[in-house]
Amino acid sequence: MLALRRPPGPQIARHLRVRYNSTQAPSPSRIRSLLSASKTSAKYAGYLCLSSVVGLVTLGVGILAHDALTYSDRHVDRVPVSPLALSPQKGGPKNLPVAGVQIDDEEDEEMRTLLTRPKLVIVGGGWGAIGVLKTLHPGDYHVTVVSADTFTTFTPLLPSAAVGTVSVRSLIEPIRKVIARLRGHFIAGKAVDLVLSDRLVEVQVDHNGKTQNIYLPYDKLIIAVGSTSSTHGVPGLENCFQLKTVSDAQAIRRRVLDNFEAASLPTTPPEERKRLLSFVICGGGPTGVETAAEIFDFCQEDIMNYFPKICREEVSIHVIQSREHILNTYSEEISKFAEAKFARDKVNLITSARVAAVTPEHVLYTIKKMDDSGKLVTEQHTVPHNFVLWSTGIAMNPFTSRVASLLPNQAHKKAIETDAHLRVLGTPAGEVYAIGDCANIETSLVGHFLELVEACDKDKNGKIDFGEWESMVKFIKKRVPMAEDHLVQVRELFQMYDTDSDENLSLNELVKLLEEVGNRITSLPATAQVASQQGKYLGNKLHKLARKASSSASQVSGKDAAVSTTSQVPTPSHPTHQTLKPIFPDDESVSQHFKYFHLGSLAYIGNAAVFDFGKYSLMGGVAAMYAWRSIYWNEQVSARTRALLMIDWIIRGIWGRDLSKL
Amino acid sequence: MLALRRPPGPQIARHLRVRYNSTQAPSPSRIRSLLSASKTSAKYAGYLCLSSVVGLVTLGVGILAHDALTYSDRHVDRVPVSPLALSPQKGGPKNLPVAGVQIDDEEDEEMRTLLTRPKLVIVGGGWGAIGVLKTLHPGDYHVTVVSADTFTTFTPLLPSAAVGTVSVRSLIEPIRKVIARLRGHFIAGKAVDLVLSDRLVEVQVDHNGKTQNIYLPYDKLIIAVGSTSSTHGVPGLENCFQLKTVSDAQAIRRRVLDNFEAASLPTTPPEERKRLLSFVICGGGPTGVETAAEIFDFCQEDIMNYFPKICREEVSIHVIQSREHILNTYSEEISKFAEAKFARDKVNLITSARVAAVTPEHVLYTIKKMDDSGKLVTEQHTVPHNFVLWSTGIAMNPFTSRVASLLPNQAHKKAIETDAHLRVLGTPAGEVYAIGDCANIETSLVGHFLELVEACDKDKNGKIDFGEWESMVKFIKKRVPMAEDHLVQVRELFQMYDTDSDENLSLNELVKLLEEVGNRITSLPATAQVASQQGKYLGNKLHKLARKASSSASQVSGKDAAVSTTSQVPTPSHPTHQTLKPIFPDDESVSQHFKYFHLGSLAYIGNAAVFDFGKYSLMGGVAAMYAWRSIYWNEQVSARTRALLMIDWIIRGIWGRDLSKL
Repeated sequence: MLALRRPPGPQIARHLRVRYNSTQAPSPSRIRSLLSASKTSAKYAGYLCLSSVVGLVTLGVGILAHDALTYSDRHVDRVPVSPLALSPQKGGPKNLPVAGVQIDDEEDEEMRTLLTRPKLVIVGGGWGAIGVLKTLHPGDYHVTVVSADTFTTFTPLLPSAAVGTVSVRSLIEPIRKVIARLRGHFIAGKAVDLVLSDRLVEVQVDHNGKTQNIYLPYDKLIIAVGSTSSTHGVPGLENCFQLKTVSDAQAIRRRVLDNFEAASLPTTPPEERKRLLSFVICGGGPTGVETAAEIFDFCQEDIMNYFPKICREEVSIHVIQSREHILNTYSEEISKFAEAKFARDKVNLITSARVAAVTPEHVLYTIKKMDDSGKLVTEQHTVPHNFVLWSTGIAMNPFTSRVASLLPNQAHKKAIETDAHLRVLGTPAGEVYAIGDCANIETSLVGHFLELVEACDKDKNGKIDFGEWESMVKFIKKRVPMAEDHLVQVRELFQMYDTDSDENLSLNELVKLLEEVGNRITSLPATAQVASQQGKYLGNKLHKLARKASSSASQVSGKDAAVSTTSQVPTPSHPTHQTLKPIFPDDESVSQHFKYFHLGSLAYIGNAAVFDFGKYSLMGGVAAMYAWRSIYWNEQVSARTRALLMIDWIIRGIWGRDLSKL
Repeated sequence: MLALRRPPGPQIARHLRVRYNSTQAPSPSRIRSLLSASKTSAKYAGYLCLSSVVGLVTLGVGILAHDALTYSDRHVDRVPVSPLALSPQKGGPKNLPVAGVQIDDEEDEEMRTLLTRPKLVIVGGGWGAIGVLKTLHPGDYHVTVVSADTFTTFTPLLPSAAVGTVSVRSLIEPIRKVIARLRGHFIAGKAVDLVLSDRLVEVQVDHNGKTQNIYLPYDKLIIAVGSTSSTHGVPGLENCFQLKTVSDAQAIRRRVLDNFEAASLPTTPPEERKRLLSFVICGGGPTGVETAAEIFDFCQEDIMNYFPKICREEVSIHVIQSREHILNTYSEEISKFAEAKFARDKVNLITSARVAAVTPEHVLYTIKKMDDSGKLVTEQHTVPHNFVLWSTGIAMNPFTSRVASLLPNQAHKKAIETDAHLRVLGTPAGEVYAIGDCANIETSLVGHFLELVEACDKDKNGKIDFGEWESMVKFIKKRVPMAEDHLVQVRELFQMYDTDSDENLSLNELVKLLEEVGNRITSLPATAQVASQQGKYLGNKLHKLARKASSSASQVSGKDAAVSTTSQVPTPSHPTHQTLKPIFPDDESVSQHFKYFHLGSLAYIGNAAVFDFGKYSLMGGVAAMYAWRSIYWNEQVSARTRALLMIDWIIRGIWGRDLSKL
């Protein structure tokens, strides 16, 4: 009720007073006149706020009713817990505890049936994993998610969180809430190794200081652990911040605010102040650009209202980009637009530059230039800093590289290679999948050379004539669908590489052709969009597979339930697992290979936003920014985060960002 | 708009489904029927949510208009900064930089005039400091706030924040926003020493690793640094958590969730699980009780929905209280009520017990009991734990004890002693004040013995007759107003201590009287309420003093402005300061001594709340809880935190607490 007694006028007044740094507060009437300058009339604006306040308060009352029902002193009765769960036997090559049964596996009838389902283990809790979890149906699998973070993060808004435009809490959703629908299990730990022969993932759990390794048995494993930033062999990256997790965002925020606090001290020498307020971003991709933009906004809209003006003046933001343009994966006009915006904002764009090293106080970079005599020279530059963000490309994290090292024909350097059905190359068919940043769908044709010749050189004459070539093209399109666009002009290709024009491709000529076509295929970008689509694709496929396999699985289920409910110690290392190997049909039989549909890229560039929908581009100011917000708002994992996000934006609109260093 | 397409029904359905852990989701209709059971009919409830959503969305639109005006690319012109500010000269006993002028002191005319005002330095950013800042008038003083935290915290809700009922961000308000009204200055650092002779506070600033000490000159200093938890000499407190700051709350939350994650692992042995889920709270005061209650709620309402049931069963909460009852500062019926509630909730109350030691895995405590033979025996007990909260009484923090050590007649062990006007005993009158937990208004009468005799023994016969005693009583009441209630029966007291009934009090008899009466005076509790009232009292007084002193100050202001705008290096250590010593009138001349009005105590005890308004008490369930919430809601520092808090409660009501370990 109190809210009604406080019309928002005065607050906005106080807000604007400091915002404009004017000594007199604009009277509420002044604000109304300000507002009326916009499309909505003052009266309307007043109504808006009032109605929302009323809404909130009434909702509050509603909650009272809701609470009165939901707050209760419920107590739980003893529930049966499988003895196997409470004391898992050891097994596997390292003889570690094998967690075949989870401690909540037999709480009720439903769980007991679930236990007889094939075991699906998902490693990672990002876009890919969530995509799978959202599309799976309850009862398909006995699902276990392994992730060091207990929550999933809406990564695209991390740059906003890094300066407090939105709160980190609004970007995260507990994984346990996501898997509740599937009656799934969650293990807070990180995968460290894989035993393909026994179908075991080795998981390292670490709770207040105590570390322990356990095995998780799987029938199907999904690797979706994401990636780390690639170092490009630059020394001194320990002096840099990353922006991949909410913890990163929090650390960045603390540093940014700390820099301003330090710069506000009367005893800070001018030179030091310049350094403290020099923010360097290495990488001109979306993350780098958005972070630069957010930091700029933060200074413009919040810092200058509450910190000494001199701080605002000494702020400098530098973006170091190796290519000629920022946002170079976007359409040209977009990078132009973004560069123009940054130019207006006096954000220092350093393009075609390579970072040579990062010291605690300086970033060293080089620029290649033509000198007057027209020969290429390398200029050395340094920029002082007390904050560097490193966001340039991706690299494998320890688990991914461990997996890759275990497998044959894993050529790719940055990720695990999968086939077009997202099955990890070199693993037993249909057992291990990889999606998201940690995965890469193979683009090499040469890898299939022998297979191709074997299949298509009908007359076994070691030569490929045009007829054989045509069948080969079909074959390739099936194996490496991404090659499709590059194999349109079948005839032209054949002639181009038939150097001795004997109407035959010698094997050498064929290798050359396959190599060069292969190199032309670009692999999918490491974006949330790709990961999410792969996750959903895989979830749907696994659902179909489970349905088809269920009949075979159900045969053993009865036997198994018996085994796992009695405490007798079974002979094999993890019986509930062994007895359960279901007969899955081929992936091909239930679904097509994965196809990526690009829905367009978007980026926030400081109270303006850009969209690249392939065919057409959109860019603009506040309106575009709202379009940008609404799209992200749409993609939220839960209604909860959606509400929180909306609220954050409103709160920030009224009272600005939170300046607390926390 | 999207929000409109999603009626809350389904979400609540999902919410309730997991809440009741039933395998079938109650259909939206079922939920409505649930809701309709309450006062509000289903239709009304639906309307409530809808209206609020509409409200939010429309407000969103309003913000768009607001943003369209406020988002702008403003740029700042160069502003003059005092050379003195950019290179403060050194001075003081340790020859440290003296920050007499702040770097934003000369941005505009208003700041330049402010510079000529007496310097008020406030050390600390809690309830006391905010009380002062809220009541001071702009232009009264050149205000500088020194605090390690850049924000002020709404401490009473820390127990809620510790389990995520509310977000920590909703409890904090940046100090810079509070002082903006006064055009004040903020220094992120902590006071470490005091130089009374030169009126300098030594401040230690520490920014990303670099530590530096500076002097802050003051004309008036307010010490409001709060307190730390007292150890009572118990070994092993490094194994305990405190709950005094938001960082504490965050640490507690991480530990609580980590314990549940660890307990959910299949490889955790049953005994270890019991220990992980055993939460021990040492101290049965409001903080301890509320934390216990919040942890209980957290388990009941959230944990059991998403974590294995076995976790919920193994949870045990223990409250160890040294007195016979918890909440012993509240009325008896209240502690009874709270104890009954805890008994129902199976919270283990251990009263009349002393904690002997805390090890990383166990809490050792002793209970004194009568054995059968009726003699007192001490029982030894231990309780396993992986979380201990230590909230038993307060102690001085390093700065406070340093100040106390500098001063004569500072007898008190837990805080700095002040007179009834909050002036620190032993400091030059009207220069140093202390408020809040770090301060204690003197209650000792013996301390004034000589003074009393001097003033009241008219006939200088070394004896006090009844007439002299009467005048002495008046004198005492003026010096130590808190003695008033104990000096009502003047005649009776006189006769009681006039042991030889010679109608005279010998000096020995007088000392005895003063001692015993003094001991009966109870000093004010260390609560937010007291701190806040003291702050407001002091702010008002300082405002009046400033007005009275302004005339004398204005005389030098002209001269000073000249000094501080020129960069000539002046001879004294901090000229702008020296030239400014204003002539303040006596505190007594502008205001009465501080009087504390007890507005009642309240506490949250798990979906129930208790209020103690001295005369009458109130206690009850959800309704009382809402009364409890509304009172705190009222006391918020800013409209922002008020809104955030309301939103948190609503969000929690709909979607439960956030389970993310962050």
